Amino acid sequence: MRFNVSSSELVKALSAVSGAVPNKATLPILETILFKSEDGKIRLTATDLEISIIEYMDADIEEDGAVAIPARRLIETLRQLPDIPVAFEVDDKFNIKFRTDKGTYKLVGDDPDEFPEVPNLDEGTTLSTTKDIMLKAIDKTLFAVSNDDLRPAMMGVYFDIGPEESKFVATDGHRLVKYIKSDLTLDEEISFIVPEKALNLVQKALHSEECDMTVTDDHARFKSGNTIVITRLINEQYPNYESVIPRDNDKNLVINKEQMLATVKRVAIFSSSTTRQIRLQMHPDKLTIRAEDIDMSSEAKETIACEYGDEEMEIGFNAKYLADVLGNVDGDEVFFEFSTPNRAGIVKPSEEEEDEQMLMLVMPVMLNTYA
Amino acid sequence: MRFNVSSSELVKALSAVSGAVPNKATLPILETILFKSEDGKIRLTATDLEISIIEYMDADIEEDGAVAIPARRLIETLRQLPDIPVAFEVDDKFNIKFRTDKGTYKLVGDDPDEFPEVPNLDEGTTLSTTKDIMLKAIDKTLFAVSNDDLRPAMMGVYFDIGPEESKFVATDGHRLVKYIKSDLTLDEEISFIVPEKALNLVQKALHSEECDMTVTDDHARFKSGNTIVITRLINEQYPNYESVIPRDNDKNLVINKEQMLATVKRVAIFSSSTTRQIRLQMHPDKLTIRAEDIDMSSEAKETIACEYGDEEMEIGFNAKYLADVLGNVDGDEVFFEFSTPNRAGIVKPSEEEEDEQMLMLVMPVMLNTYA
Repeated sequence: MRFNVSSSELVKALSAVSGAVPNKATLPILETILFKSEDGKIRLTATDLEISIIEYMDADIEEDGAVAIPARRLIETLRQLPDIPVAFEVDDKFNIKFRTDKGTYKLVGDDPDEFPEVPNLDEGTTLSTTKDIMLKAIDKTLFAVSNDDLRPAMMGVYFDIGPEESKFVATDGHRLVKYIKSDLTLDEEISFIVPEKALNLVQKALHSEECDMTVTDDHARFKSGNTIVITRLINEQYPNYESVIPRDNDKNLVINKEQMLATVKRVAIFSSSTTRQIRLQMHPDKLTIRAEDIDMSSEAKETIACEYGDEEMEIGFNAKYLADVLGNVDGDEVFFEFSTPNRAGIVKPSEEEEDEQMLMLVMPVMLNTYA
Repeated sequence: MRFNVSSSELVKALSAVSGAVPNKATLPILETILFKSEDGKIRLTATDLEISIIEYMDADIEEDGAVAIPARRLIETLRQLPDIPVAFEVDDKFNIKFRTDKGTYKLVGDDPDEFPEVPNLDEGTTLSTTKDIMLKAIDKTLFAVSNDDLRPAMMGVYFDIGPEESKFVATDGHRLVKYIKSDLTLDEEISFIVPEKALNLVQKALHSEECDMTVTDDHARFKSGNTIVITRLINEQYPNYESVIPRDNDKNLVINKEQMLATVKRVAIFSSSTTRQIRLQMHPDKLTIRAEDIDMSSEAKETIACEYGDEEMEIGFNAKYLADVLGNVDGDEVFFEFSTPNRAGIVKPSEEEEDEQMLMLVMPVMLNTYA
């Protein structure tokens, strides 16, 4: 195999796939990136057996071939180079030599036949959409994904695509987010759970305007421009999240988002470091947020103006979850809906595009009563 | 005690002293910052018993007094506030209440009498200089300080101030730096070792033009504007570093610094990850830098132009130490002086101010010879 590339183009392509190279690989071949000439381009592949990333790169190919190149050394060396041409030469024992006008470097590669096969999704169902739509669905939901190994279904975002609308849901049991996109549809109904890590990599990988998503029973593929991300799906039943969303919420509160978020963060500093519990006290047109840490004898209280006209109520939340949810609401104002202090609080943005709908939910915490 | 301050001024003063608050304190009082009214100002003090920082801050003091306030909570809360006035009130049980127009916050403070005494250096010897001179001496030497607990003397920068000149020296046994400032003098000869952490804090603390350094047998004090850093000295004999500096170096090499540094970094990637050994081969007017990692069967070679007219020679270095030294030389070109492959290489900058002199030294490593 012999080819010439620009060092900066190669660094860009390597960066695109390197997210799939595991930090500590059980199989040494996973620490390599597969280079293969294909129709006048070089196809780079990296995989951790769960997630694979493929990137196509322009190159001047003098002799076709394939080789698996140790990822870390190659990337480190190229990052230290200015933008100059690099000439690669691979012999039939997979010894790699690359040359620039600065010097020559030798590495030992691996047999490309030992590199794991990337799943074929040609039989899957494809949804064609845009980068912006896909990124928004991921951005809006990813923060609420669970990292609890004991509940694997919740360790990813639930995609529920159908003829009426598409739903994207994430929850860790403490908070939940449901994002509905009504103009993104598919003739058939499909639902699946995409692991968090794969979506993190998809966020970084989408560079072209369009984005095609293809799904089979076990895998999903996200294709955008020269980049393809393929991930194994989480093969679990997603929890019945609709049942935890309270329906008859008679109390409504409208408040400035930034102001509330800043207050929650400040007051939370005075909460117990184990529970992070803060209490929201709703009075006519004002909201008082308090926290106290009995161990440290510290407490804080702030009052902010809001629109509230219902019965006075006190409800407790974990400050971290409430702050996370507030930080993910669009717009200047935020709508809260409450029923009783032992049922979830619902959070919605003040403005929405016509074809989308966002609902977030934060579970309350039991308030311990003290004098 | 009662006083009013601006939140942003207080954050600035707290940031100045917070470097001395230990992350994990054995004594709980060390996790506090001492507030004390003094001549219409508030004096803030933090200490980890080795290093103390004092900062004077303007405030509107309504009632004099003192209190030790938990550092972390106070700093976190104030950082979340916009720039607004804050009113502090401390009762005789050291309960602290502070109030802004956003809310009220309560903390329990500690008895200021339990706060450790800060060493008094009024009897010490004082050297008056400027921030720029002091910072340069610290910047030039700090990188070479050792972190080896078994050789405590080398865990700081050696200050050797006298009537002729001032010398600042640091070494970890692998590399050494000696910075001489000939226009910084004192009638008497004093020498002492300042711990690395203290110098890190001094770097951050110097904000005014002038800097006064006062030294006693056990402590040094750096005073600049409203800020004072006091540190215990390392009470050890500094090694006789002059004996390791080779005197008769008959080989001279002049080379572009950036080019050599980039080459060292690239080639080092192909060196053994345990030894980091690279070899420099000097030929007439060119320098070849090579590395190889036998375990990984990888190697690299780069050649760069230089000025060299002496006997051909090969010498080995640890790439990290060589790169560190190169990264700390001023100017576009760097001068090397060598004698034999088993003696230290000397590195000097190509340009220097008239009143200063910089010498760095890197110990060579034994080259294992292979075919």
